Amino acid sequence: MSLLQQTIDAIRPQDAQARSQAKARLDQLIMPHWALGRLMDLAMELAGMTGSIKPPVARKTIVTMAGDHGVAAEGVSKYPQEVTSQMVMGFVHGVAGINVLSRLVGARVVVADLGVAADLGELVRAGKIIGKKVAMGTANMARGPAMTRQQAQRSIEAGIEVANELAASTDVFGTGDMGIANTTPSTAILAVLTGTPVPDITGRGTGIDDQTLDRKIAVVQRAIQVNQPDPTDPLDVLTKVGGFEIGGLAGLVLGAAAQRKPVVVDGFISTAGAMIACALAPRAGDYLIAAHRSMEQGHRFMHSHLGKTPLLDLNLRLGEGTGAALALHLVEAAARVLTEVATFEEASVSKAKA
Amino acid sequence: MSLLQQTIDAIRPQDAQARSQAKARLDQLIMPHWALGRLMDLAMELAGMTGSIKPPVARKTIVTMAGDHGVAAEGVSKYPQEVTSQMVMGFVHGVAGINVLSRLVGARVVVADLGVAADLGELVRAGKIIGKKVAMGTANMARGPAMTRQQAQRSIEAGIEVANELAASTDVFGTGDMGIANTTPSTAILAVLTGTPVPDITGRGTGIDDQTLDRKIAVVQRAIQVNQPDPTDPLDVLTKVGGFEIGGLAGLVLGAAAQRKPVVVDGFISTAGAMIACALAPRAGDYLIAAHRSMEQGHRFMHSHLGKTPLLDLNLRLGEGTGAALALHLVEAAARVLTEVATFEEASVSKAKA
Repeated sequence: MSLLQQTIDAIRPQDAQARSQAKARLDQLIMPHWALGRLMDLAMELAGMTGSIKPPVARKTIVTMAGDHGVAAEGVSKYPQEVTSQMVMGFVHGVAGINVLSRLVGARVVVADLGVAADLGELVRAGKIIGKKVAMGTANMARGPAMTRQQAQRSIEAGIEVANELAASTDVFGTGDMGIANTTPSTAILAVLTGTPVPDITGRGTGIDDQTLDRKIAVVQRAIQVNQPDPTDPLDVLTKVGGFEIGGLAGLVLGAAAQRKPVVVDGFISTAGAMIACALAPRAGDYLIAAHRSMEQGHRFMHSHLGKTPLLDLNLRLGEGTGAALALHLVEAAARVLTEVATFEEASVSKAKA
Repeated sequence: MSLLQQTIDAIRPQDAQARSQAKARLDQLIMPHWALGRLMDLAMELAGMTGSIKPPVARKTIVTMAGDHGVAAEGVSKYPQEVTSQMVMGFVHGVAGINVLSRLVGARVVVADLGVAADLGELVRAGKIIGKKVAMGTANMARGPAMTRQQAQRSIEAGIEVANELAASTDVFGTGDMGIANTTPSTAILAVLTGTPVPDITGRGTGIDDQTLDRKIAVVQRAIQVNQPDPTDPLDVLTKVGGFEIGGLAGLVLGAAAQRKPVVVDGFISTAGAMIACALAPRAGDYLIAAHRSMEQGHRFMHSHLGKTPLLDLNLRLGEGTGAALALHLVEAAARVLTEVATFEEASVSKAKA
């Protein structure tokens, strides 16, 4: 059996008993009932995911997956393709947004090359990044499939391998992405999996102007028309209109879920990966935490499809895992509320009047 | 000249030069323009407040001000008045929500007694809390003024004193409150200062039922009718329908602003204090950061009046400073983005195409 199928089969629902035990404690904390709102909802989720009423959250790993996109040739981004590998160097040097926000929250950043169109072998050999390159960037999806079905499966399994390799040293995963033009395939995935009209869900990515936005909409529509991805076959969707880092992110979500580890999903590209994961294994959704609602207008359609309400809404549109890094503070806060705030009985505080 | 007037006079607008220098750097960070959205807005604010493009934020102090309310006798809360002093004990023992969330973000919690209806002298003498008691709780505002004008001024000046005492060891302040029934005076302050109809802005506080909510609305309306507070005289509003901890919070905001220290304002009660502060000294608003939008339905009217958009929206309704503690992580994140993320030039990353 393939690693992909094994992993899908290994995903179990949340632990209902740990959830209800957590709820019972949260109901009794010295505060008006459920007065910490969504932090308490999240604490209950963490208990269900980890199967523990003391959910471990101290060891946080953000996996930033990088890949390039043949569709960049259609002029859908504001930046040249070389920026993908330049930003990988920035991550390695610790000077990018994700490094700064991860340091603040005490998370480790692990960068994985799933398909950057540059030779990053030296960084891999030096142990600076994880090498899981499927190919030197995808093909141009506006003219044919972005990748082969074998490459699609390989990219997902590479993500699962990353999750498995990091699981022993990780309590909570965060996701991140880097890849010039990758809002374009993410938009196509969203359109195919939900049937939403492309113009409604196509955003400005790195900040493109009106003319480029029109072109981007046309490119996504053409990619879908040329490739006719089968919405009932997530692997076909990834093959036709996906990206290697998006496949890797889908695999990371599946691997984390199979290991019962919460996974904090960042922005538009990460959530596209999570949609592929949940299309393959709906139970994977039990382990997802939506970090934030990005500026990318399609993001809310993704959350709605996944049944998730994001924790933050700060007009972010960077990716890299930056929203996940910020949300990890709330994840840790939720776990601490569950484990450290006293109950009425423990603190001898008078309860509400009957 | 009174301490209050001196403090009001000392408040200067934000430093326009530091703001524009911060903007110039943020414009050049290795990311699509302004891709960290509200974090970058906040970074610019922090530069303007502190007058520095390296705004100091490491030393965080949350001041939780406690007081009791004569109007509790009208049956507007779900909890008995004794809970105010019991929760102060909880803060001192480090087992309440604010303690847990402050520890996580590395903030110190300072509890100040502005008017708890219990003798807390032992805690004051032991250095566990700051003693600024104006009286043993306010009078019942449904039957007459909550306090005298002298007490109102004293409560604000007590808050200024707290800010002044802590300023040397604090980079950023957070506000918090504890006081059974204190959403009732906060609602009255909001109604008087904005002219919004009381039923539109009266919320469920600790979780009261429909019948108690109707009574609470009637009590707020009666307090306004009986006392006829002058909306153009903030000290009169505080006198007639305020609270000692609310006056203290107003003073804390004024004191922080005079010291050019950012102040992260928590929930409904803290924001009522901030409204009094800004009514006395509109420039104080330059130093306010709205932490979160609470479940209390009037809170959004307060933010709208103050021209602030809260950072978080997590269905919180606890007070104590818990929302401020969570938002302090974003404040620190914003400062780090400004000071630690590289520029395109520093990192040799290709800029956007022309």
